[in-house]
Amino acid sequence: MPIFQAYNLYLSPHRKFAKSLKNMLGFVPSNLNLYRMAFRHRSVAISLKNGTKSSNERLEFLGDAILGAVVAEMLFKRYPYKNEGFLTEMRSKIVSRVNLNQLARKLGFNELIEYDAKMVNYGNKQSSLLGDAFEAFIGAVYLDKGYNFTKDLILNRIIQDHVDVHQLELTETNFKSKLIEWCQREGKEFAFEPLVNEVGESEKLFCIQVLVDGEVVGLGRDFNKKNAEKMSAEKACETLSI
Amino acid sequence: MPIFQAYNLYLSPHRKFAKSLKNMLGFVPSNLNLYRMAFRHRSVAISLKNGTKSSNERLEFLGDAILGAVVAEMLFKRYPYKNEGFLTEMRSKIVSRVNLNQLARKLGFNELIEYDAKMVNYGNKQSSLLGDAFEAFIGAVYLDKGYNFTKDLILNRIIQDHVDVHQLELTETNFKSKLIEWCQREGKEFAFEPLVNEVGESEKLFCIQVLVDGEVVGLGRDFNKKNAEKMSAEKACETLSI
Repeated sequence: MPIFQAYNLYLSPHRKFAKSLKNMLGFVPSNLNLYRMAFRHRSVAISLKNGTKSSNERLEFLGDAILGAVVAEMLFKRYPYKNEGFLTEMRSKIVSRVNLNQLARKLGFNELIEYDAKMVNYGNKQSSLLGDAFEAFIGAVYLDKGYNFTKDLILNRIIQDHVDVHQLELTETNFKSKLIEWCQREGKEFAFEPLVNEVGESEKLFCIQVLVDGEVVGLGRDFNKKNAEKMSAEKACETLSI
Repeated sequence: MPIFQAYNLYLSPHRKFAKSLKNMLGFVPSNLNLYRMAFRHRSVAISLKNGTKSSNERLEFLGDAILGAVVAEMLFKRYPYKNEGFLTEMRSKIVSRVNLNQLARKLGFNELIEYDAKMVNYGNKQSSLLGDAFEAFIGAVYLDKGYNFTKDLILNRIIQDHVDVHQLELTETNFKSKLIEWCQREGKEFAFEPLVNEVGESEKLFCIQVLVDGEVVGLGRDFNKKNAEKMSAEKACETLSI
C-alpha cells in the first residue's frame, strides 16, 4: 500500500477535523466533541434516546459573553482616554454579526460547519450561520482551554491577524445613512419619531423610534438626543438585518 | 498619646477605605486607586490640568462584560439541559439593575460611593447609582487581580452568599403583568401591536411593539410569537424603569 494511502486511512474524519482546526488556529484542541458541537447548526442537531447531538446554541451563548469580555478589556486598555460611549460603540463594531461572519469565513469555518441545506438558506445575506458558529467556537475554546488561553487566541491570533481595529475606529458606522440608502433601494418610507420620557436622575432622557413603512423597527434612548437617534438607527439596521 | 488615638491616626482615609473593602469582601486590594474610581459617580468626577478624577463609567463598561461572562459560564454549567433562551433569561434576572442595586446595598457599597447629592437623586427608585458602582467594582477587581480571582469572588463570595439563583429560577419575571399593573396605577393606556417582518432563514420572525399612551416603549423580536411579546414587555419595563 503506497504511503499516502496509509496516511489517508490514518487520517480518520476525527483526526482530519482536529488537523483542520490545528491548521486554522495553531493549537491542538483537547476535547474535540466541544468543537464538533460548536460547528453544528440546529438544523442538524438531533435528540435521540441513544444519544444526542446538541446544536451550537448554548455554546454560542457562552462564547458571546467571553468574546464580549475580552474585547471590552482590549478596548479599555487601548483607549485610556475614551469614554464608555466610544468603547461600547467600538465593541459593537467588532462583534457585529457582519464582522463575525467575515471573520469566520477568513478563518475557514465555512468548511467545518454542519447544517442542513434544505432548511437553511446559507447564501442568504442575512444568515448568521457563520458568526454564530464563531461565537460557539469561542465558547468551546474557553471550556477546553480556559480564559487566558482564549483571550490570547482572540487577541493575538484572531483580532491581530484579521481585524483592523484602527480602520473600524475611523469608519464611522453611519447607521442612519445605511438605513436611508436601504429604504431608497427597497422603495420604503422612512421616519424618525421622537418620544420624550422623563426618566432617571434629574436629566431628560430622549427616546426616538424609527419607522419604516409605518412600522417601528428601532428604538433608541439616551440623555443625548443625537445619540438616541444614532442608537435607534443602529437597532433598525439590526432588526432589518441591513 | 493613648493607643487608640495613635491607631486612629494610623488609619488614614486611605487605610480606612482599604480596611472597609477588606471587611466587606475578604480580600486586600492592591491598587486602591482603581477601587476609588469604581465608587466615584460622574457627579463628582473632575478633570483638571493638574490631575483628574475619573468617574466610574469606563470601569462599569469593563465590569459589566466580566460579570456577564462569569454569570454566563455559571449558568451554562449549572443548567446543562436548558436551552440558550433559558440561560439568557436567567442571566438577565441576575444582572438586572434592580438585582445589582440590591446586591451593592447588601455588600455595603452605599457607604463607599462618592456622589454629589445636589446633582443626583439617590433616593430615586430609578437610580442605578449602586448597581453601576457594583459593575465598576467588578471591573476594578478584574484589573487588580485577574479573571480567575474575579470569577471566584463573584461566584463564591457574592452570588453564593447574596443571590438565590434557585429562587430567581422559580420566579417567573412576568414583565407583561408588571407593565399592566404599572399602567393601571399610573392611569396609562397599554397595547401590544404585532408587526410581522420576514427575516432570517426560512423562518417567520415576529416583531411586537408595546405602546403606552400611544408611544412605543418596547420592541421584541423572536421566531416564537410568545417570546417576542415577552421580550417587548421586558424592554418596555426597562424603558420605563419599572
